[in-house]
Amino acid sequence: MTKRVVLAYSGGVDTTACIPYLRHEMGADFIVAMAADLGQGDELEPIRQKALDAGADVSVVVDAKERFVTEFGFPAVRANALYDGQYPLSSALGRPLIGELLVETAHAYECDAVAHGCTGKGNDQVRLDLTVALLDSSLEIMAPAREWSFSRSETIAYSEKYGIEPHVTKEKPWAIDLNILGRNVEAGLIEDLTWEPTEEVWSLTTAPEAAPDAPVHVTVGFRSGTPVSVDGEQLAPLDLLARLNTLAGAHGYGRIDMLENRVVGVKSRELYEAPGMLLLIRAHQELENLTLPADVLNQKRPLEAVYSKAVYDGLWHGPLLAALNAFVGATQTTVTGEITLKLYKGGVSVAARTAERSLYRHELVTYGSDCTFDQSSAEGFIDIFSLPGRVWNKVNG
Amino acid sequence: MTKRVVLAYSGGVDTTACIPYLRHEMGADFIVAMAADLGQGDELEPIRQKALDAGADVSVVVDAKERFVTEFGFPAVRANALYDGQYPLSSALGRPLIGELLVETAHAYECDAVAHGCTGKGNDQVRLDLTVALLDSSLEIMAPAREWSFSRSETIAYSEKYGIEPHVTKEKPWAIDLNILGRNVEAGLIEDLTWEPTEEVWSLTTAPEAAPDAPVHVTVGFRSGTPVSVDGEQLAPLDLLARLNTLAGAHGYGRIDMLENRVVGVKSRELYEAPGMLLLIRAHQELENLTLPADVLNQKRPLEAVYSKAVYDGLWHGPLLAALNAFVGATQTTVTGEITLKLYKGGVSVAARTAERSLYRHELVTYGSDCTFDQSSAEGFIDIFSLPGRVWNKVNG
Amino acid sequence: MTKRVVLAYSGGVDTTACIPYLRHEMGADFIVAMAADLGQGDELEPIRQKALDAGADVSVVVDAKERFVTEFGFPAVRANALYDGQYPLSSALGRPLIGELLVETAHAYECDAVAHGCTGKGNDQVRLDLTVALLDSSLEIMAPAREWSFSRSETIAYSEKYGIEPHVTKEKPWAIDLNILGRNVEAGLIEDLTWEPTEEVWSLTTAPEAAPDAPVHVTVGFRSGTPVSVDGEQLAPLDLLARLNTLAGAHGYGRIDMLENRVVGVKSRELYEAPGMLLLIRAHQELENLTLPADVLNQKRPLEAVYSKAVYDGLWHGPLLAALNAFVGATQTTVTGEITLKLYKGGVSVAARTAERSLYRHELVTYGSDCTFDQSSAEGFIDIFSLPGRVWNKVNG
Amino acid sequence: MTKRVVLAYSGGVDTTACIPYLRHEMGADFIVAMAADLGQGDELEPIRQKALDAGADVSVVVDAKERFVTEFGFPAVRANALYDGQYPLSSALGRPLIGELLVETAHAYECDAVAHGCTGKGNDQVRLDLTVALLDSSLEIMAPAREWSFSRSETIAYSEKYGIEPHVTKEKPWAIDLNILGRNVEAGLIEDLTWEPTEEVWSLTTAPEAAPDAPVHVTVGFRSGTPVSVDGEQLAPLDLLARLNTLAGAHGYGRIDMLENRVVGVKSRELYEAPGMLLLIRAHQELENLTLPADVLNQKRPLEAVYSKAVYDGLWHGPLLAALNAFVGATQTTVTGEITLKLYKGGVSVAARTAERSLYRHELVTYGSDCTFDQSSAEGFIDIFSLPGRVWNKVNG
Repeated sequence: MTKRVVLAYSGGVDTTACIPYLRHEMGADFIVAMAADLGQGDELEPIRQKALDAGADVSVVVDAKERFVTEFGFPAVRANALYDGQYPLSSALGRPLIGELLVETAHAYECDAVAHGCTGKGNDQVRLDLTVALLDSSLEIMAPAREWSFSRSETIAYSEKYGIEPHVTKEKPWAIDLNILGRNVEAGLIEDLTWEPTEEVWSLTTAPEAAPDAPVHVTVGFRSGTPVSVDGEQLAPLDLLARLNTLAGAHGYGRIDMLENRVVGVKSRELYEAPGMLLLIRAHQELENLTLPADVLNQKRPLEAVYSKAVYDGLWHGPLLAALNAFVGATQTTVTGEITLKLYKGGVSVAARTAERSLYRHELVTYGSDCTFDQSSAEGFIDIFSLPGRVWNKVNG
Repeated sequence: MTKRVVLAYSGGVDTTACIPYLRHEMGADFIVAMAADLGQGDELEPIRQKALDAGADVSVVVDAKERFVTEFGFPAVRANALYDGQYPLSSALGRPLIGELLVETAHAYECDAVAHGCTGKGNDQVRLDLTVALLDSSLEIMAPAREWSFSRSETIAYSEKYGIEPHVTKEKPWAIDLNILGRNVEAGLIEDLTWEPTEEVWSLTTAPEAAPDAPVHVTVGFRSGTPVSVDGEQLAPLDLLARLNTLAGAHGYGRIDMLENRVVGVKSRELYEAPGMLLLIRAHQELENLTLPADVLNQKRPLEAVYSKAVYDGLWHGPLLAALNAFVGATQTTVTGEITLKLYKGGVSVAARTAERSLYRHELVTYGSDCTFDQSSAEGFIDIFSLPGRVWNKVNG
Repeated sequence: MTKRVVLAYSGGVDTTACIPYLRHEMGADFIVAMAADLGQGDELEPIRQKALDAGADVSVVVDAKERFVTEFGFPAVRANALYDGQYPLSSALGRPLIGELLVETAHAYECDAVAHGCTGKGNDQVRLDLTVALLDSSLEIMAPAREWSFSRSETIAYSEKYGIEPHVTKEKPWAIDLNILGRNVEAGLIEDLTWEPTEEVWSLTTAPEAAPDAPVHVTVGFRSGTPVSVDGEQLAPLDLLARLNTLAGAHGYGRIDMLENRVVGVKSRELYEAPGMLLLIRAHQELENLTLPADVLNQKRPLEAVYSKAVYDGLWHGPLLAALNAFVGATQTTVTGEITLKLYKGGVSVAARTAERSLYRHELVTYGSDCTFDQSSAEGFIDIFSLPGRVWNKVNG
Repeated sequence: MTKRVVLAYSGGVDTTACIPYLRHEMGADFIVAMAADLGQGDELEPIRQKALDAGADVSVVVDAKERFVTEFGFPAVRANALYDGQYPLSSALGRPLIGELLVETAHAYECDAVAHGCTGKGNDQVRLDLTVALLDSSLEIMAPAREWSFSRSETIAYSEKYGIEPHVTKEKPWAIDLNILGRNVEAGLIEDLTWEPTEEVWSLTTAPEAAPDAPVHVTVGFRSGTPVSVDGEQLAPLDLLARLNTLAGAHGYGRIDMLENRVVGVKSRELYEAPGMLLLIRAHQELENLTLPADVLNQKRPLEAVYSKAVYDGLWHGPLLAALNAFVGATQTTVTGEITLKLYKGGVSVAARTAERSLYRHELVTYGSDCTFDQSSAEGFIDIFSLPGRVWNKVNG
């Protein structure tokens, strides 16, 4: 029986070395390289060719940017998904999509295995393996880089043995993952917790100190929780996110330097840039504060943390996320309106809020003379609200 | 039987009018005015005298600043208490302390009632009434301003009827509450959600645009979760908070403009300034990320929201807070270390983290050659971690 | 302007007295009495006539039993709704339906107010008022029995003044509420926490001691979480519930004696009988244990408590319940199968479980030789699962 | 360097085979067998001797029954710890104690490794390994039975090779774990979900059908959440639990047949008997319902599920449990009183509740004429409680 494998291919040194390794060390007879464009900004045709040069039987590239924003990014905005309250899951959301594409490609090319170049220390191996498990558990999963114990120079040497010219660029002192939702930098100098990142580590965002001296206001419009416009202009999802990435990034907004808890039980330090996603979530939270009642918010906020952890852990295609998405979806019907944010040198503040279905009622809350709130109710309310406290004091005081 | 009342007295128009109102409309025979210094910056002796002039039988002032920071502010830092994820409860934490002082004063002067000048629309009435209920439920609570229906000019007229010269200052277009933990501004123009606050509304914080062009780094030290030092210098609680208020405020940090859900069921817009508390909480969260394991953080974070809502609702002295404080306290033994934050024009970022008992282990997480993480474990881990997913897909896929 | 009111009418002494009271004391010009049949077993025509005799302008009766079971009872089963872990909300679920019917009737008869006979101490006033608020906040709510301060004999005297013959039956030493989902008994002797209920307090259930000496097995079938069959026989919802009420009740199953926390801040003791609902929930929980993965169960179980409290508090028609129902609904697609329970003298145990989409995989769990679970994965799993513990001990041990 | 190992020894076929296996296959030079008495009812001296006969260098037995009940069982009662709402963790609580004893013995005999005979499919390996990791992460953990792939007959053959006479009893068609907190039966016939357990599977409980025809009442007294008396008689912890095991078991109470979610990702069916623990938890819950206010209960109940899962997962000695125990402990100061339960043929009901600090206030809740609840407060309360609902309907209705 021939072993047919589809490999998640990025064009980098590691996934390129996976091609000969799969064939010569792990018994693959037929190798499909699948490279997905999630907005990482690489030219795809050279990558497609590189896989063939490295020995892939078939090499395909898929433009999945629109799908990424629509089916992954914006649902995460509706859930205000921030892992550990900070990270908008830009890399984490990419893995279930790559997993989907792997499975689809495996089916198209009648493969019985999928492969990826993740190592055994990170989160991405977990996310890809889980995605494949949830989408087609009959597929074997092969992870050459989890099996070999190559240093970087050994990887290059191994590749060269099979005639692969690695085009190795000068190695960066850290590792980067980039897509349209954001950018992740880790390892190297970043592993020193007292090292404050220097500017060369950042790419999508201007340094706050170098950002324009004048603040900018930007208005984001949502319809039922989904972003639809910027400054009044209706935009397609991909354009909308790209515009906000550029705008917010230029004002120094969107940097995260965090210590996070990996799926595999260790704390690691990660740097992220996600100006557009962070801006969307900030605006969306604010619009929810305006349009959702307190009891819904009090339940949705902790579930957002559950949602974020589940996405981080790679459970996107599982039944828990389906249920959480149903909860989130049911809350979003009235989340329509516009939030204006002010961006200035890395900071953000809310400048204006409007929603057709705003639950803020000026006539109830005003201290002005036109107030319709019945103050006489407060006494009865407090009498009953404090009743358990009075009983507690009487009994235990 | 004579009715003896202790009134929470601030020196303002409303609480001053409460003195004759309590005596002439509500039957008080003996009135003790109690003014607490929580760091609002007023001179207390004139306030003490003013209560006597308005007809109080006794007038006392209490310096409660140290107690406020030590027993209320710092425990809230250990709990990272942020109502709706934003507001560090500066005003809300003051009320249970004022309530304590009212009850203590009532006992000292053998009063059978306490009184306050809160209206029936806000949160403070709830917090004060609940505090008194929890501390001494035998005390009657009198709330003249919840009973009368005076406009401001009617209040003044009523006071003048009893010979009180109200020394009315030009009325601000909003209402202010200030203490050492922070400042709250509400009502008036702020009720218009599209009105972006102008500079005169703020007091503790410089406008980001007017803040220094050079960033500043500040290092906050904690011992078992309690703030103890700034830039290496050990400081008493009150001094420490005051120093951070000044420093962070000068850099434009610490403004909050939020839509919040009041206890009495309405949404209101509130502006807060709390540079010191926000800085402490930000640093403390980061130190916890370094010193607490993921499972503890995953339980503590949602309980912090419960804690914050309970404080906001006035339940400080109730048994739920006691249990939550026990939980928080048990987590803080190892939360000792220093966090360096960078402040720049309203923004904050983490610049360095150190802790003797850091759970971040470079040797486990590094991608360098000295890594001790056993990658071969990952395969077994993922095999079992993804087992429920594979079964789900096999059964339902 | 004439005031037109629809009154929730039960035929009892209190709601009958409400008719003259609404007209003569509260200014109602036109009164519609609306009696709903939720399975309380009363004959409706005499009740309809009684309202007319008491002075109602219109009297309508509505058979809402099927709607009650289908739209309220079975969704609650899918949510395993048990308030404080015990009470299946039989009375609580009736109120939002009565509220719906009141609002529908108000619209049909162009009324501008609704009325009910609840007193000010219980939960039902809250539930009805909230339901009306959520369905048509323009309707005025009138609650005569919350306003008057009649003792029972004064109520009767007041009724007689308006020519109403109260047909007073010998007063029971407790208060009863009954519908197809269950029966509630409270007040009187029950208020003594050391009084063990005697048999005359119960009605739907046989005493365990008097139940048959032979156990019975009953198999309940569900399709996507909804009960559809008993012992293999497909049954309409109302018939299914009635059959289980009879069967389980005959075996002494379904009694609850609990101390519960009312919405209005007091603890009260309540007795319930709900044999059918309790049996359905027990079977449904077990079927979920078989068909839902652990991560879904770990989120759904605490949300069931939130759901139950929200129903108890009267929030059935609010947006929180809508979101929770969406979550629950999304989890139920695979909850299809049969659970066999054994009933014996008040006790229940699970006797068999089958589901087409069972997640229990004998081949994974068996200690037999055909086991497919890869034990070698366990070591890697535990290595990583215990890694945070090892680090904790190394740092803090 | 010599390798010195302490082995958790039970006297069974598997742990006996571990002794030669550790020495001959895994390089142990010095083996200490440690057998703990947790109330499993075995005679310890023959077990001690058996380990020596099998080649252990040292063999110790520890009576840990009192410690087990006091430090593990009763704290779990205070937390009402029931995994998945059903299982009182009788086996799960034993593992952290055995782990403690292993570590203590390792220190006493200067061992550098601990060993156990758990296989790779169950929970106990996880619990023991985690306990050791949390108590002394420098100790190596050896798990022969996770490494070898012996069938039962191969295990016996291996033992005989080293001169061990296995004294094999007729193999039961299931596996049993027993201690003073309860009994667990699994595997074999039990793996068939449609097999209803026959009587020979049970040991601590009489069949309900065979239980006495007359019910019995039993009164359990607690002081600050800890069980202290039965029927008014003060009892030492071990005696108290033993008495309740006997009494409740005789009345057919305490059987559990559940489908549970193992740590290692599979569902398994387990039978438990834990009459005493279940009775204590039932009584304790009821006493809490009487003495704790609703807001505390509403937070404690979901934390109990977190607590139970953490214990099940083996995290007893970790910092999360420490924090949860602090929360629980803080709630128990007033949980003092007596609960009377009625036991009858497998069922239980509450017959009486008394507590000095009962929060149930008859005068507030009674429908009698002596009621002190101020009904007029209800209208104000509901006005504000339903305000968000009215606003929601006005905006979105």
